[in-house]
Amino acid sequence: MAQTGRSRSILDIKASHLMSTAVSPLAPTSVPELPVIDGVRLATAAAGIRYQGRTDVLLALFDKGTTVAGVFTKSKCPSAAVDWCRAKLKKGVARALVVNSGNANAFTGKTGKTATALTAKIASSATGGSADQIFLASTGVIGEPLDATKFNGVLDDLAQKAEPGGWNEAARAIMTTDTFPKLATRTVKLGKAKVTINGIAKGAGMIAPDMATMLSFVFTDAPISATALQALLKSGVEDTFNAVTIDGDTSTSDTLLAFATGTATNAPKITRASDPRLKAFVKAFRAVLADLAEQVARDGEGARKLVEVLVEGATSKNSARKIAMSIANSPLVKTAIAGEDANWGRVVMAVGKAGEPANRDKLAIYFNGVRVAHKGMRDPSYDEVEVSSLMRQPKITIKVALGLGKGRDRVLTCDLTKEYVAINGDYRS
Amino acid sequence: MAQTGRSRSILDIKASHLMSTAVSPLAPTSVPELPVIDGVRLATAAAGIRYQGRTDVLLALFDKGTTVAGVFTKSKCPSAAVDWCRAKLKKGVARALVVNSGNANAFTGKTGKTATALTAKIASSATGGSADQIFLASTGVIGEPLDATKFNGVLDDLAQKAEPGGWNEAARAIMTTDTFPKLATRTVKLGKAKVTINGIAKGAGMIAPDMATMLSFVFTDAPISATALQALLKSGVEDTFNAVTIDGDTSTSDTLLAFATGTATNAPKITRASDPRLKAFVKAFRAVLADLAEQVARDGEGARKLVEVLVEGATSKNSARKIAMSIANSPLVKTAIAGEDANWGRVVMAVGKAGEPANRDKLAIYFNGVRVAHKGMRDPSYDEVEVSSLMRQPKITIKVALGLGKGRDRVLTCDLTKEYVAINGDYRS
Repeated sequence: MAQTGRSRSILDIKASHLMSTAVSPLAPTSVPELPVIDGVRLATAAAGIRYQGRTDVLLALFDKGTTVAGVFTKSKCPSAAVDWCRAKLKKGVARALVVNSGNANAFTGKTGKTATALTAKIASSATGGSADQIFLASTGVIGEPLDATKFNGVLDDLAQKAEPGGWNEAARAIMTTDTFPKLATRTVKLGKAKVTINGIAKGAGMIAPDMATMLSFVFTDAPISATALQALLKSGVEDTFNAVTIDGDTSTSDTLLAFATGTATNAPKITRASDPRLKAFVKAFRAVLADLAEQVARDGEGARKLVEVLVEGATSKNSARKIAMSIANSPLVKTAIAGEDANWGRVVMAVGKAGEPANRDKLAIYFNGVRVAHKGMRDPSYDEVEVSSLMRQPKITIKVALGLGKGRDRVLTCDLTKEYVAINGDYRS
Repeated sequence: MAQTGRSRSILDIKASHLMSTAVSPLAPTSVPELPVIDGVRLATAAAGIRYQGRTDVLLALFDKGTTVAGVFTKSKCPSAAVDWCRAKLKKGVARALVVNSGNANAFTGKTGKTATALTAKIASSATGGSADQIFLASTGVIGEPLDATKFNGVLDDLAQKAEPGGWNEAARAIMTTDTFPKLATRTVKLGKAKVTINGIAKGAGMIAPDMATMLSFVFTDAPISATALQALLKSGVEDTFNAVTIDGDTSTSDTLLAFATGTATNAPKITRASDPRLKAFVKAFRAVLADLAEQVARDGEGARKLVEVLVEGATSKNSARKIAMSIANSPLVKTAIAGEDANWGRVVMAVGKAGEPANRDKLAIYFNGVRVAHKGMRDPSYDEVEVSSLMRQPKITIKVALGLGKGRDRVLTCDLTKEYVAINGDYRS
């Protein structure tokens, strides 16, 4: 694909790929070592889709019998790859996953559809799986045709060199404006067998509810049917990826796929998500999703503080979610956090605008555990020095107690800083 | 009210009152001269509610027979003044309006209610109208009790010195983070009589749909019943104040009140909004609301560009509004405009996340009249140099043609700049 200076600034949905060279101050202090998952082999390459001097293609190969499930952006203008995966998910069988960064293949019209078909065909020929069993994800520039012929040869090489392991390299190959690779793992018993769940993700900006994943891929050796895996995934995202918001914007490409190779020795075959033997697995599966989702929030564009919004005492969980999202997406709340200001007035404002049941005179608001307002007024007893000190911490928890019912929820976000504007504003002048 | 250093940063919903000393570059080049409206007298004072060295109280006195209508924030946590006005609106009669800046009397519990009653009582005694005919609005700090005894004496003085005219001073007295006073006027025929419509407004941040006015007051000498005036106001805000968004946040205090003195000589008495004689008046009334609403957008916090979002070809006007608001509230679109980047990929994203009917492959997108994308792809014919030049203009029009139906709508917003973050972030460190 010719990379012209002309198209760059106009077409790049993230004009400043790789401009954030500094790692987010909220990054985890260590990157986990992900164990091998039997039946999964990985390889990455620098195909020059857009970036120079870094990997931009990930190929994951799966053994026969691997099931797949997926959830996607709710955008009405999804990318061609999202369309492709949705269609192929019906059979629930996967032999390979091809992910590229640098070009989202979104808003590319018929050429986008052609590009997905060609990519799948090349991958099919390279890996031996049928094209219907190839899953695709693309992230990067929007509106620029993806030249799938670039995958010619590249995918053959990757299929040759794919090996168990290499998770860190895989997580790096799918990054765009991310400042650190995102990985998580859990090991847990399924029946008497030990099974593993590994996950990788990329995020940064444009993270919002309604399938808030950006790109994330989860892999397990547990033998779980596609139907059961789909149910696990759908319920799993609700309080993890769908409870993260950076700026309220939703990508055209958000994709979360889960693959189960079924290769774990002596593990019972699971066909229903409600199977009681799944209990520990479900917990671990959600922990992986939650871990990755939190890492996405920690890498929000320009983020300097991780913000946890807890809402309790709402009339329902759904109502609590709406109020929590209203707070988490409020530019005034987010700029106050950036300014280390325990500005509960703005929290009241965000509660009020959510449109959900709330009684001003029953509201209580806490910042990092200190009650600053209750019964519709400032709490006269709180210590300003203490609160000011707490607001300097890298993680801020805003708790709102509505005093109406038992509905509660939790949402993660980050602060809104000048760096966010700089990253996305691409100031030319 | 004692102004302690302690409460300032915690309680101030706009921590940086008056910090923006520079006038918005989008301010109108001239301030209109508003004519006298018979039956309206105005006076302002510096009562020291919060600010030093500026006026912060406005008293408007109305002759007997003045009708009133109002629309308010949809916040579930409205200010005490909003509660007061809603209750008093039922009778539809007004003798006075008291507005203070510096303290919003919001989230102040029972003391807030007491403060509104006391303010109305003092105003009643000063003006001779019954307390039920006194309308109130407050803007400024949230959560800080409003010491209504401050109005003792002040309102007496104001009632004494109130005079026809003084609109500019009135508009200045209600400002908070505004960088310029907002005034509009139209003169029009009603029957054979000449009638006048004057309006003032304050805005800046926290401007969003669902009654997006902040504070605005409109005055006319036309003899219009309260019921008819309410209908005019309700329909009038739909495409004016409710079609403006700065940051998607909604104040607890948003208030728009309209007063009709009925003093215009020989004007026909109007009792129904559908009265055909009102046609020219309705047009002028909406023009005043639209003028004020645009001034609010032009004074968005940190705004450097006025952004007009036009959506056409939607399945309905309501659908077009939702899509336009999704674009206007998108931080990624707004930062791109700040960066003078015709980033239509982000516009596609915002269309997609609105959840309304949209067909990727029928979308066309224009920036300041130049089509940059159509039929789901980049428009190969547009001239990048021309578009880059157009993006440097102070007003940017984004037009989205959906190609589905006849629904169209228009929304005004501004760009999202580092200055917005600075104004609202109150960076302490």
